[in-house]
This record gives sequence, C-alpha cells and structure tokens, in this order.
Amino acid sequence: MEIEFEKSGGLVPAIVQDEVSGEVLMLGFMSAESLALTQQSGEVVFFSRSRKKLWKKGESSGHVLQVREIRVDCDADALLIRVTPVGPGVCHEGYRSCFFRAVDSKGAATVTAQRTFAPELVYKEILPKGKP
Amino acid sequence: MEIEFEKSGGLVPAIVQDEVSGEVLMLGFMSAESLALTQQSGEVVFFSRSRKKLWKKGESSGHVLQVREIRVDCDADALLIRVTPVGPGVCHEGYRSCFFRAVDSKGAATVTAQRTFAPELVYKEILPKGKP
Repeated sequence: MEIEFEKSGGLVPAIVQDEVSGEVLMLGFMSAESLALTQQSGEVVFFSRSRKKLWKKGESSGHVLQVREIRVDCDADALLIRVTPVGPGVCHEGYRSCFFRAVDSKGAATVTAQRTFAPELVYKEILPKGKP
Repeated sequence: MEIEFEKSGGLVPAIVQDEVSGEVLMLGFMSAESLALTQQSGEVVFFSRSRKKLWKKGESSGHVLQVREIRVDCDADALLIRVTPVGPGVCHEGYRSCFFRAVDSKGAATVTAQRTFAPELVYKEILPKGKP
C-alpha cells in the first residue's frame, strides 16, 4: 500500500508506542526515506522538521527504538510504530515519554511523570531548544 | 503554557488514546480554537485539514470522545488526548481504532483487527475518500 506522504508535504506523523506497556512515548515525523530506513534497520529513523534531515532516534543517547510492528491508519497518512525502547527513556528532558505534562482547561501544565534519567549525563552536546 | 500552533502552520497533531486500554485510536489535528472547544466541552473537536473547518468527532456517528486528560509533549507541538470513547469504534471504516492495519517491510498491509460495527448503518451520507 502507498503511504500518503505527499498530502502532508512529504512527511507523515509517526506515533511511537511501547509495545508492552501501551504508553505513548513520542511523536515524530517520517519521510518516505526515513520509513524505508526504519523498516530496513529495524530501528526508528525520523525526519527532523527543525534540522531538515534524517534523524536516527538514539544516535546520541543510545536510546534507540526497536521496531516491533508498524501500523497505518485508515487514510494512510499517519503511522503507529510499536516498539521496544532501549534505555530509560526517549525524552531529551529525562523522561520515559515526551508526554510528561498534563494541561488543564486554563492552559496550566503539570508534570505527571518522574524523571528516569539525567539528560546532562546522556547528551554530551548542548541541545538546542526543542527536540534533539 | 503555550502550545506551538504556529510552528506547524496553525495545527498540531493530536493523538487519541483510550484511557483504560491504552489503545491508540486515531490521530487528528487541532487548531487553537479546536483545542479550546475540546477543553470547554469535554469532547474532542479536531480541525479537519481536508475540509478546512472544525470537526466535532462523532457529530454524525454519535461516537464522541470524552476527554479524560490532555498531555503535551516536551516541545509543546504535539498533544496526547486520553479519552473514554463512546460507541463501538472511532474509525469510519468500522473499526475500534483507525490503526487497524499493519504494514510489512515490503509495504504490504494486513488487517489486524476485527470490525466492531457496520459503517453503512452508522454513517448516513456517502463518505468521501479519507476521514469523514
């Protein structure tokens, strides 16, 4: 089947979910090339919108995402990647999931998770604002 | 906190997850207005990219999504909406989740879920290709 990359300017959102716990870990974007590399290597490769290049998840931290299953939605413009995450977390802020805050109806955010690692010990470079 | 709507042209991806089972049900997009309406009403309102207007999920099927929690990711450009889904499924093709197919490394898709309802009995109008 064809994934509808062109409908969204060449990139489709890819949800990453822990296959065992069901926890949603992060959302990235994939180009056709990054999807092909993900399928070939068995580890998740995104396309970074901010850096405009391929981004192997875990390339600096070692926290790679081993692919167990790739699902596609009804209109073929979103992916669900079910994974085994390697390491204590996927978020560059030190959490297991990037979705570590809840927002209330007034827009206030509350951290709802515990840190699982110290990002300054894992990432050697100073990170720009936003995703590494 | 501010959600980064402008970074993505006014819309951010919003993952919908069943709060109890952890199943990822669908992915839609939200504008600032649709997020505000979702928060005010307690039921999910997307912004339809194809129809370019607000889209109350369940407006024709009755299969609304009751919001239990809204989470935001580390760089505030993706949302995770944890819900109680009303009705047998969210997908206009008759499945509980829109992610009812797995794709293999050759691009072949396999349906991995059972239909939970007959879409022709739920949706009265002929649906265009893609999301309703």
